[in-house]
Amino acid sequence: MYTIAIDAMGGDFAPDITVRGSVSALRAFDDLRVLLVGQAERIQPLLEGAQDVLDRAAVVDAREIVENTESPVMAIRHKTDSSLVRAIGLVREGEAAALVSAGSTGAVMAGGLFRLGRIKGVERPALAAPLPTVNGGQALLVDVGANVDCLPEYLLSFARMGSAYMRQVMGVAVPRVALLGIGEEAEKGNQQTKAAYALLRESGLHFVGNLEARGVPMGEADVVVVDGFAGNILLKSMEGITKAIFKLLKEELHASGRAKVGAMLAKGAFSRLKSKLDPDEVGGAPLLGVNGAVIKAHGNSGAHAFFCAIRQARSMLEGDVVNIIRREGNHSQS
Amino acid sequence: MYTIAIDAMGGDFAPDITVRGSVSALRAFDDLRVLLVGQAERIQPLLEGAQDVLDRAAVVDAREIVENTESPVMAIRHKTDSSLVRAIGLVREGEAAALVSAGSTGAVMAGGLFRLGRIKGVERPALAAPLPTVNGGQALLVDVGANVDCLPEYLLSFARMGSAYMRQVMGVAVPRVALLGIGEEAEKGNQQTKAAYALLRESGLHFVGNLEARGVPMGEADVVVVDGFAGNILLKSMEGITKAIFKLLKEELHASGRAKVGAMLAKGAFSRLKSKLDPDEVGGAPLLGVNGAVIKAHGNSGAHAFFCAIRQARSMLEGDVVNIIRREGNHSQS
Repeated sequence: MYTIAIDAMGGDFAPDITVRGSVSALRAFDDLRVLLVGQAERIQPLLEGAQDVLDRAAVVDAREIVENTESPVMAIRHKTDSSLVRAIGLVREGEAAALVSAGSTGAVMAGGLFRLGRIKGVERPALAAPLPTVNGGQALLVDVGANVDCLPEYLLSFARMGSAYMRQVMGVAVPRVALLGIGEEAEKGNQQTKAAYALLRESGLHFVGNLEARGVPMGEADVVVVDGFAGNILLKSMEGITKAIFKLLKEELHASGRAKVGAMLAKGAFSRLKSKLDPDEVGGAPLLGVNGAVIKAHGNSGAHAFFCAIRQARSMLEGDVVNIIRREGNHSQS
Repeated sequence: MYTIAIDAMGGDFAPDITVRGSVSALRAFDDLRVLLVGQAERIQPLLEGAQDVLDRAAVVDAREIVENTESPVMAIRHKTDSSLVRAIGLVREGEAAALVSAGSTGAVMAGGLFRLGRIKGVERPALAAPLPTVNGGQALLVDVGANVDCLPEYLLSFARMGSAYMRQVMGVAVPRVALLGIGEEAEKGNQQTKAAYALLRESGLHFVGNLEARGVPMGEADVVVVDGFAGNILLKSMEGITKAIFKLLKEELHASGRAKVGAMLAKGAFSRLKSKLDPDEVGGAPLLGVNGAVIKAHGNSGAHAFFCAIRQARSMLEGDVVNIIRREGNHSQS
């Protein structure tokens, strides 16, 4: 039985979608238990009609809510009766093995770091983002914002943790690891990536060299390591350009009657395209390197996206990712 | 009369498209003169049928060609009879005021830096990329690869040069300058951008703060400054995701008969969308901060893209960008 603590009040549409997503997950996986943490009087009514799975759900009352606008570190320190801090506490105390939250990214990272602590020997925990690729797979980008200033050793640590994740969760036997760069040659990059290149080559990982950003959506690597500043820029630019293209496409398809009819006929194609590119389908962002399985779901997650994030947390438990990282994610000192 | 030196042998389809693009430009602008630099016996035949503009074109023979695969610095140093080095020489000697090349990016940058030299007081010349935005305008991203390791002062210098370009070439009266970052708040970013934030706020430029990558295609700023490593990643990811989306869209539109008919009817909409997103339409990448107007056109430019790059070089001359940068692009020491 896998027990997952749910920050039921985190995210733009909480607690409605967090509870609905949790109920779907309970129905999909009978080895799953959830602890729904948050304002009980708001959560309880949403469980009506879920009698079939209620024996595997518990509500844990917590009065406060961490807002996106407040300082993450302050919130984690002072809002001790918040749904997020209480949910993290359940993981820390061993009541749950994983946390899923659609709340503030900064607060989830701070909570993971300060309350769960980093795994001994891991240089720096990292926030990873699974990105959809054109071949229907995904590439794991590490880091996307936990470490904006990085040493080359951190990138090696990201590569080890990312490989463990892709192997255990996605079933990629030997994940191809690439260093995000500005050219394929070893000598291309900044000071940090050139030093990291040398470390990765000697790492024993399946290092495939530098990869330009355009190779990421093409699926040319399974794990792509980069500092959290450039990684966040890549992540946000992919979101931005996707949004921009769909906006322009919609405008153009409404520009003439002929195009409108065409768009209607091709509607199925557009929605399949959208779902292929949908980050919700691949799940949330795992925080790797802390003592517990932590998934940060998108703040604007709907019930299905939140369900996917819970499924992903369950896969991390099933694949024993935290223990694998404890054992092998960390050879940088050896 | 504006005289532009053309690296006629640079790029994937040279000299065919460089000569055709030049002839189109001569026809479009009667205040333009071009010096076509390269293997005369290959260029000359391509000018047949262009008698109407031949009085404003001259062929300057150069025997060597700089390849994409060779070391840029070595090529600039040793291939002194290459079309690129000779064309840069014409700018240096004042025979031409601008250079347009679709050749190796590294060699164009190295040639600009070492043969033309940086403008006194400019911290570091930068390669800028105009990106199309959803509102039909463009955003200038500076730097996209000339400086992979940056000090905060360089970013300020990029902002001044980028503002001068957008004002003089694109007619944006007061360009909005943003710092590419990972969150809008001043305290978000890495060490470099946090320090640059403070410099930009005091700069007298129209600084609008940090901008996340997704805001760039939305047109939320006119000039976006960033170090050349992250800037190159943003540029390449936009290219990559655009390509990925069109690839997936094509696949989906061929997946059923119904979708195929729809696609046929909406064909005009798709091609308008493509041209709106086409980097060729906005031109090549200006190398800002060197003693001369330098445009690096895409290596795979067709004749129209190369024409656009020449038009852009002419606009830089018309707007007197190099002298403006000499005068005001450089207050970082003041």
